[in-house]
Order: sequence, then C-alpha cells, then structure tokens
Amino acid sequence: MTALEALDIRFPTSRDLDGSDAMNPDPDYSAAYVVLRTDAGDGLEGHGFAFTIGRGNDVQTAAIKALEPFVVGLPLERVVGDLGGFSRGLVYDSQLRWLGPEKGVMHMAISAVVNAAWDLAAKRAGLPVWKLLAQLTPEQVVDLVDFRYLSDALTPEEALDILRAAEPGKAERIARIEREGYPAYTTTPGWLGYSDEKLERLCREAVADGYSMIKLKVGGNVEDDRRRMRIARTAVGPDIRIGTDANQRWDVAPAVEWMRALAEFDPYWIEEPTSPDDVLAHAAIRKAIAPIKVATGEHVQNRVVFKQLLQAGAVDVVQIDAARVGGVNENVAILLLAAKFGVPVCPHAGGVGLCELVRHLSMFDLAAVSGTEEGRAIEYVDHLHEHFLDPAGVRDGRYLPAALPGFSAEMRPEALARFSFPDGPEWRMS
Amino acid sequence: MTALEALDIRFPTSRDLDGSDAMNPDPDYSAAYVVLRTDAGDGLEGHGFAFTIGRGNDVQTAAIKALEPFVVGLPLERVVGDLGGFSRGLVYDSQLRWLGPEKGVMHMAISAVVNAAWDLAAKRAGLPVWKLLAQLTPEQVVDLVDFRYLSDALTPEEALDILRAAEPGKAERIARIEREGYPAYTTTPGWLGYSDEKLERLCREAVADGYSMIKLKVGGNVEDDRRRMRIARTAVGPDIRIGTDANQRWDVAPAVEWMRALAEFDPYWIEEPTSPDDVLAHAAIRKAIAPIKVATGEHVQNRVVFKQLLQAGAVDVVQIDAARVGGVNENVAILLLAAKFGVPVCPHAGGVGLCELVRHLSMFDLAAVSGTEEGRAIEYVDHLHEHFLDPAGVRDGRYLPAALPGFSAEMRPEALARFSFPDGPEWRMS
Repeated sequence: MTALEALDIRFPTSRDLDGSDAMNPDPDYSAAYVVLRTDAGDGLEGHGFAFTIGRGNDVQTAAIKALEPFVVGLPLERVVGDLGGFSRGLVYDSQLRWLGPEKGVMHMAISAVVNAAWDLAAKRAGLPVWKLLAQLTPEQVVDLVDFRYLSDALTPEEALDILRAAEPGKAERIARIEREGYPAYTTTPGWLGYSDEKLERLCREAVADGYSMIKLKVGGNVEDDRRRMRIARTAVGPDIRIGTDANQRWDVAPAVEWMRALAEFDPYWIEEPTSPDDVLAHAAIRKAIAPIKVATGEHVQNRVVFKQLLQAGAVDVVQIDAARVGGVNENVAILLLAAKFGVPVCPHAGGVGLCELVRHLSMFDLAAVSGTEEGRAIEYVDHLHEHFLDPAGVRDGRYLPAALPGFSAEMRPEALARFSFPDGPEWRMS
Repeated sequence: MTALEALDIRFPTSRDLDGSDAMNPDPDYSAAYVVLRTDAGDGLEGHGFAFTIGRGNDVQTAAIKALEPFVVGLPLERVVGDLGGFSRGLVYDSQLRWLGPEKGVMHMAISAVVNAAWDLAAKRAGLPVWKLLAQLTPEQVVDLVDFRYLSDALTPEEALDILRAAEPGKAERIARIEREGYPAYTTTPGWLGYSDEKLERLCREAVADGYSMIKLKVGGNVEDDRRRMRIARTAVGPDIRIGTDANQRWDVAPAVEWMRALAEFDPYWIEEPTSPDDVLAHAAIRKAIAPIKVATGEHVQNRVVFKQLLQAGAVDVVQIDAARVGGVNENVAILLLAAKFGVPVCPHAGGVGLCELVRHLSMFDLAAVSGTEEGRAIEYVDHLHEHFLDPAGVRDGRYLPAALPGFSAEMRPEALARFSFPDGPEWRMS
C-alpha cells in the first residue's frame, strides 16, 4: 500500500432544501473521501468515504488521514487478502480507540478506509462487492466479523449455521438479483422543506415509477404532518406503504402521541422516533404504537447497539448504513445479527453515495444470509448519483445491481475537483 | 468572545507504562486543549481540554477548532451568563450533530469548550466551579440541563424536587467540604504493567496514606490477576475495598467467569467489564456476579446511555468523566439521574487533568444534589498534576477542594510549551 489520500468534498445541497428534515434543516451533503493506492501496477485504486452533512467534514477528513500510518506500507495481501484482520487492526489501535470506542468520527473514518479496501479487493477480483461476498464460504464470511461483545447474542458457530442454511439456492438467488435487482422505496417525495404541491406531484410520480413504498419526513409540527400525510395517502392510494421518519426528534411520550395522531393515515413505520442510542426508549415506543413498526439504524453507532435493539425487541426493521459503522465487515455482523433475530434489514441510503454502496450489502444479504427479500427494501433518494462512476439506478421500483467491479464508491474525477472544499470551483464561486 | 485557541498537548507516559491496562498497553496521555479569550479587559481566560491517550489527539484538536465559529464573536454574556443555552447551541448545530450525535470526537470537543466556558465564568465570579454551581437556585441548575431524551426517566419537575430536597443543610455541607474535602480512592498501585513488588509496595503505601479503597487493573490473564489480587488483599488487609477494572475487555460469559475466579479476594466492584455501549450486558453481568458491584461510565458517551444503565438496573456505581460527555452541563444531568435512581456517583479520574476537574462535580453533588458522600469516592491517580496551576491534592484519603477560582483546568504555560506536539522540546528530543 503506497498512499492514503483524504479529500474534503462538499455539495451545496442546502440551496434547494433537498435533504431537509426535522433535525437537519439545511444540510450540505458531503463526503470525507479516501483513495488508497498501491504499487501493484494494475492501476486499481480503492475508493471510500464517510458521509456528513457539511460542517465538520474537515474533522472527518482529518480522522481518515490519521489512519494513514495503519495502511501505507502494509503488504497489499495483508489488506485485500485479509479484510477481517485489516479491519480489526484499525478498530483495535488502543490509542485511537480511546476516541470512541467504535463510534462517531473515528469509527466513521475506519468505515471509509475499510470500505475503500473492499473496493480495491473487489476491483482486483473483477467482481462487484456483493458478488465477492456472496461467493465466500461461510467460514470466510465468519472470519470477516469481529464477534467481540456479540457472543451473548450471536456466536461464530451460530453465524456459520445461518450462512450454511442459506447455501441451498444461493446460485439461483444471485442469478435472480442480476436479472431483477432488489426492492427499493423512495424518500424523494417527502422532504420537510417541500411544498404541498411538490409533495403531491412527487407522490404520484413515485407510484407511476413502480414504487410500492414512499417515505415522509415528520416531526416538525403535528398539524402539518397530518396535512402532509393526508395529501400523500390520497395521492398514493391505500395499497402503497408510507414510511415516516422523525430523525430523532422526540422523547418517548411525544413519539407515541404524535404517531397516534398520524395513525389514521396508516403509516407503515416510524423511523428514528428518538435518540439512536436509546434502546429502551425504542422498545417502549414500539410496544405503545404497534402495529405501526419501529425502524432505526442510520445513526446507530456499531454492532453492540444493533445487538441490543434486537435483544430488547426494540425494532421491527434494522436500517444499516454503509458508512457509519465500521464498513463492510461490521455490516456483515449486523446482517447476521438481524438474521439470527429474524428481523428484516432495510438499509438507509441517500446522502452522498450511500445508495451506491448499500445495494451491495442488501444483495449479499439476499444471496447468502437471510435468503429472502420479504419485508425488505432499500431506501432510494435521487440525489447526486451523477457524480459516481457506477451510479445506483432503480427500474420499476427495484435497485439494479452494480455494473462495474468494486464497491461503486468511486466518484468521477471532475466531481472530486469541482466540489473540493473550500478550493474547488463550486465553492470559490459561492 | 475574541478567540478560541486549540492546542495539541501530549505527555510521553508510555515510556514508564504508567496508565497501562488490559486494553491500553502504552498510552501517551494527551490533552486536546482549548483557550477562550475575551475583550473584557480583565485578563481572564477560559481553559478546557479533552483527554486522549496519544494518537488521534490531532483529530480531537481539529474538532475543537471546528467549534470556533460558534464561540468567537458571541457576546460574553451569551456564554458566561447563559451556560445552558451556550451548551445547547453547540450540541444542536445540525451539521456537526451528524458526526455523533452526542458521542465520540465531536462530543468530546464540545465538552472541552463547554468546560472552558465554565472555567471562564467561575473565574469571573471569583469562585471555584463547584461553589458557583452550589450557589445556583434549583431553577438555575435545571436550566443548565438538556432534558431531551430524558423525560421517560427524569422530568424538569423531578429534577427540581431533587434539588429542593437538598437545600436544607447545603451551607453546612459546603463548609464541611471546604474543611474536610471529599473521599478519594487510588488507582496508583494497580496498573497492569507494574511488577508484583511495585504493586505490593504501592498497596501498603496507599493504606498508610489513608485510603480506604484501591483499584487494580485486571483482564490480561486470569492467573496473573488471581496472583495480583492475592498480593493486594494481603497487603491492604480485609477492611480496605479493592476495586477491579477490566477496561472493556470481556463479553458477558467471560466477565462472569473471571469475576467468580477473583471472588475469593473480595473485589468491591468490577469496572468496565464489557463495552460501555452495552446496557443489557452490564445488567446481565451485574445479576450474575452480585454482591460484587458493577461500575461503568468513563467511556459512556452521553446522558442517554447513563439513563438506560440506570433504568435497566445495570450498574451499582455511576462513573462520570469530566471531559467525555458534553461538559459540566451534561454531567449535571447525569448527577440528577443518578440521584433519581439512588445510585452513587464515583467519578473516573486520572489521565490528564481529570482529577482536577472532577472533584468540582462530586463536591457539587454532595453540596446540592445527592447531599451525601455514602458509597462515594473520586478516583485519584498521581500523574501529571505538577503541570496544573491548581493541582488536585489528596490528604488522609480525601480530595481537597480547589484553591483557585475556575475549573482547575488551566495548565502552566511552561507545560503547554514543553509538551506541545509535535514541535515542543519534549517531542523534538524523542
């Protein structure tokens, strides 16, 4: 490994209120971006990123740069040939670990670098990450996972059993994924900053585009939310699922009260009703608002908290994020945990490049872990895909698989130049 | 507010294995240090820091620097006259919040800046922070606290009741603290890197110095731990409490097994048996090893996790840290939560300057919140105090109150110069 380059890339999304919700009124979607280079002579690079929403992307970029000594100088095979060991090496540096452990800025930096290593490994294998993962043996998959703090809920032996049980039919499922993709739902209609007219138009378009589920941001004002839910329900009809998303806005009692006020519009789930750290509050809310489901995960910091959400019966839906926990490896652990508890995984996406990455994880889950797409769909948001070399695409409400080898994390060089902060032309102008 | 200066200060403690434990073999105790300046013309500055153990202190320093725009330019009164509002303003910047929320590097940066603001406010008031806090009305204390995500366990009204119940006798308790200080226990004997001879000698010295409790690091090797516990128990006799500290080393089953193997030496508590994120695992361990107590908190990220540890009956002892959660304000919330649940607070200290800070919080707790020192003691480690202007001191096993106005966070200018990383003389030499 010859170089780790870290770049501060920001998109001025706050100008149009794309991405506005109850807690995040004016995000500038950003990526703390990393490029890994080697002297293998094949011209292949590993690309990865942490997603942020603007301020602080410089701190995130500095955290990625702090991992340079743990990467540069390693033999290539110690990285792409031992992705489990490489990942654990980053997580267990004792000094950096103090800054978490396994949470926040430092863990997101590890995520970016681990994902970049997967991008590199998959490019070298000539496969998209999901297929590279799906062709591993159960033993090889288990070796990717750090079972520390998991053994009261999931042992390596239990993980092997889950993976072995999914072996029959794997080839057929892979072929079906390549043919038909994977279910998607869309958040495009529902941003809090959109007018009623735009909401209604986008709801109708979502149905016409083949989606069977949409999502609305809620939590600003309950009367506004009731009006917006009524508009959305009228526009999509009774058979389309409407997820709602409060982005951590509430304590337990207001969450219950608010969702009861929306219940007549048949919300499918409430996402992030409260703090992502609050396992017990999610459990209390879930119990109080059933049959409305409870979903969370985009801000859940690591496998330890996901484990507890499952142990406590706190969620109906696990929402993994591609770049917040420690990258592919920790997400494999979370997929296995969810399979153990029989809870479906519906990944968080949107932001910058999260749709591109997360489809790999769900397709691997379908191929080799849970073996089913029942109750499962990946979020789709139609922002910023044009900047990626292998952009996420949806057809008839289903994600298409990646077209190129790698993790689909690589941005076009012209985008990296234009949106470089603060010196790229997009920011110098403003 | 005219300036926020952020400094990377590191002490080469790894050279002597001071601070070595089962998860942290070679720490270089460090401070991401902040100085707030004003144009008030009184020459007073606010000092604060986040404690780290070496690598990554640059990332932590960058995170503090990222808060500059939220401080510089504010009217002084918006900071020192509204410490609740100032603190919430840092926590709720929507873009920076994405990097946590309220955890890890960004939250520790907020801690440093909030604590520096308290240092400044207390210097301006001519009082140590604990007395400044203790003289506030219950309403003023409640206004310091962010109750978001707490209301299922603690409402503002309940907090007021707790504080009002502690009003009688407050003046007498303050006078007694000034006279007699606050109970301490010592971790000095028990670092994992010390020889048996050094362990035994330091245990005897601790008893001679008046301590009624010492602490041993455990979790490296169970036979070594049994030998070291036997040495320590023999050296201190049956009446001195011996805390043990595994620094997050175990899963549930090994924690239980290991502590049963140490039970014959009568350990008082096991600290950090497992991940600080794992409320349910702490609850399971506590149930299995009673009457050995379970303690945690130095790595607990925020009030939401402390709340759950208390709700789940997962801990016998709450260990607050002065500089990991969001500073004085969030620690006031945690003191109130612990009082609500009737669980004693025994702060984590050591590191760089944590002893200096945390005595203020326990003395405030005794004066105005719990009103008792029963079952309570502050950790004391005899490292690095010489670099502080108002160093922590212990006499007859009790912490002395701060001698100067402020939060005791200010390091001597010559220490800041000498240990500046990487350009200070201490590091240029090495």
